[in-house]
Amino acid sequence: MTAPHPRPDGARLARAALTRLVEPGDELAVQTVAALGPERALALLTGRDRLQPAERDLLSDHAGSGPALGRRWSAGLARWAPRAERLDPARDLVALHRIGGGLLIPEDDAWPAALHDLGAAAPLGLWFRGAGTLPAAARALAVVGSREATAYGRQVTSAVASRAVRAGACVVSGGAYGIDGAAHRAALDAARDLRPGHADAGAPGPVPTVAVLAGGLDRFYPAGHEDMLRAVMEAGLLLSEMPPGASPTRYRFLHRNRLIAALSGAVVVVEARWRSGAQNTAGHALALGREVGVVPGPITSPSSAGCHRLLQEAPVRLVADPAQALDLLPPDRGAGGGPGRSDAVADAPAAALAEPAHESTARPTDGLSVEELLVCEALPVRRAVDVDALTVSAGLSLPTVLAVLTRLARRGLAERVDDRWRRTAG
Amino acid sequence: MTAPHPRPDGARLARAALTRLVEPGDELAVQTVAALGPERALALLTGRDRLQPAERDLLSDHAGSGPALGRRWSAGLARWAPRAERLDPARDLVALHRIGGGLLIPEDDAWPAALHDLGAAAPLGLWFRGAGTLPAAARALAVVGSREATAYGRQVTSAVASRAVRAGACVVSGGAYGIDGAAHRAALDAARDLRPGHADAGAPGPVPTVAVLAGGLDRFYPAGHEDMLRAVMEAGLLLSEMPPGASPTRYRFLHRNRLIAALSGAVVVVEARWRSGAQNTAGHALALGREVGVVPGPITSPSSAGCHRLLQEAPVRLVADPAQALDLLPPDRGAGGGPGRSDAVADAPAAALAEPAHESTARPTDGLSVEELLVCEALPVRRAVDVDALTVSAGLSLPTVLAVLTRLARRGLAERVDDRWRRTAG
Repeated sequence: MTAPHPRPDGARLARAALTRLVEPGDELAVQTVAALGPERALALLTGRDRLQPAERDLLSDHAGSGPALGRRWSAGLARWAPRAERLDPARDLVALHRIGGGLLIPEDDAWPAALHDLGAAAPLGLWFRGAGTLPAAARALAVVGSREATAYGRQVTSAVASRAVRAGACVVSGGAYGIDGAAHRAALDAARDLRPGHADAGAPGPVPTVAVLAGGLDRFYPAGHEDMLRAVMEAGLLLSEMPPGASPTRYRFLHRNRLIAALSGAVVVVEARWRSGAQNTAGHALALGREVGVVPGPITSPSSAGCHRLLQEAPVRLVADPAQALDLLPPDRGAGGGPGRSDAVADAPAAALAEPAHESTARPTDGLSVEELLVCEALPVRRAVDVDALTVSAGLSLPTVLAVLTRLARRGLAERVDDRWRRTAG
Repeated sequence: MTAPHPRPDGARLARAALTRLVEPGDELAVQTVAALGPERALALLTGRDRLQPAERDLLSDHAGSGPALGRRWSAGLARWAPRAERLDPARDLVALHRIGGGLLIPEDDAWPAALHDLGAAAPLGLWFRGAGTLPAAARALAVVGSREATAYGRQVTSAVASRAVRAGACVVSGGAYGIDGAAHRAALDAARDLRPGHADAGAPGPVPTVAVLAGGLDRFYPAGHEDMLRAVMEAGLLLSEMPPGASPTRYRFLHRNRLIAALSGAVVVVEARWRSGAQNTAGHALALGREVGVVPGPITSPSSAGCHRLLQEAPVRLVADPAQALDLLPPDRGAGGGPGRSDAVADAPAAALAEPAHESTARPTDGLSVEELLVCEALPVRRAVDVDALTVSAGLSLPTVLAVLTRLARRGLAERVDDRWRRTAG
């Protein structure tokens, strides 16, 4: 990734400051930036300027209006104030530049389009270290799992990650011990085998692996992974929405997981305990309409209990072979022969519910899965309904309905109105 | 099970002869018995008498009419003729009686009602050895799997079978090496722990385990399981539709699997290779509308490959815990506190597609699963359609449609007309 010019533009400076001012997932801050731009938003969030009536009207298009917005704004000012005095974005940008990194922002051409799927939960910027370019989500496979990995879990992770890189895909993970580490290591090994001698050249190009961290990129966390994370940085990319110096709190770990899900075309969970961060990543992926694959294991292994729970309760696919993990990625519509998708794991099409599809009589609902059709039919055309009502009328679980709505919206069949949904007219 | 009187009645003698005359799954033979009774059917199938015009009319209600029936009848006579001279049913009945067994026939009160689900594939009689009574299907759990079991597979099988017997259920399996053997052994051990000292008493009562064999019960097959099968006989039951002396051919093994499925309220597959008899048993169970549970395992283990295939391709449930296997059994409507069913593995009800269910406004389709509703809505009320057409109009796989049709028929919502289906009127 190209490091930004040492004398950064106003938007980059403002967003660098905002990543320190605001915790991840602060929707009002993101909505303010969307409505008024990063520089004006920074002036308002730090309390340097006051929100003008015309600005409040603009903001209410994104964040709702009336007394509720007033209360949200007051609460926001209260939580932003403590950090407002300590901002020095130029220093942060220089610090990252010195260690081979920078801040990628939505105003950059290289900003990953897939992050727009996060809506008001999108990051305000992405700090990075490394030299390659971020792949399109359709060519990025997240491979995640427990820190308490078994030998079986590490073996399967290596096979999945290695196969992904050999097929031209990028392995996205969280840099942690266990499954994450096995995924990054196998991706690096596979890349080295593919381009011997080039691994250390730092030549820009699609990277084999990306580690998304929960804290600032000036330190390598966990410490025991310093060598590995350094290797990821040299051949791939480290990413974080947190500025240098920020510590990786539990809260930030959970929000980091949404970035892993959003940056990837699909997520594979290899091993997960009954309660695990990998399930959190899978939940984010489902809500974003990403495919989630889950590797089963012995039912006697606590490290697979969360996997079996996902397989029973969530609309995920069982991955019985490393090749099937790759099949989870959506078809790559861009240039370059990315990994395709076999029919083996495709949804059972419910097109049969419509007439046989001829080009002249094609309907927008042709090719929908049974679940997509159920949700589509449950959506009213005029008034929008909330998601809970849709779970009732479609008879599907909440994660399924969320995932299906995102897919329908992409096909132009559904649209969101505030927090409610309706069928797209026509 | 009470051994039949040494001087058997005509129906028992005729059916004993028919089990030697006819291979399992000979639908025309079963239809002839259903139309004309076992004694008359025996006279006709052996060629001793000729089919009369009035009998042909009766038979055509069961087996179809016209020239097709004539051709089927000629082909039947040709395949029955070679064995017609060698029948000695009285000798077979005496032989089984001497070794503590007999022949159970549909005319007996103790005939398992669940076998009627097999229709024209029902057995003509069931040879047995043992002293207990056969449980209702709702209290019988089939536990099946590969001969090539791993230590993991045997461990899980023991836990499932042991828990089933402790909950008052009976473990049905095929007496084979590997998973089958581990299931029977654990069931016998659990029963011994429950009623110490009674295990050898042979007191009639619900049995803890049933082995359904593919050959005659005068010999124990496989030979390495002689001691175990003898123990099953002493505390439980051995069953076969084949008369004494019949060898266990590959063909008979596959047909034996339909009996395991039909006699049980649910089937659990613990380990299965990519191609395995356990998958055949699971297929029979799905076609009969029985729940099928499948235990996952390491994707690196060939002994779990068939399990993962079933989990990906068939409407089965993942069993992540021995307790969940027991939850697959249907609610026991008979007397005695049989194992119940937890909500954890219940179908997502699609009742929400209808109005909220009040007693006064209950509809026949209330409480149907999404799949059941799809098939129900795809069924025409007047003319019947074939199953292939239903897979198209409901957008579901063939095994799913077959399983759902059986469930709908039990609820009185669908009915079979020859080989086609329609919705029940009213």
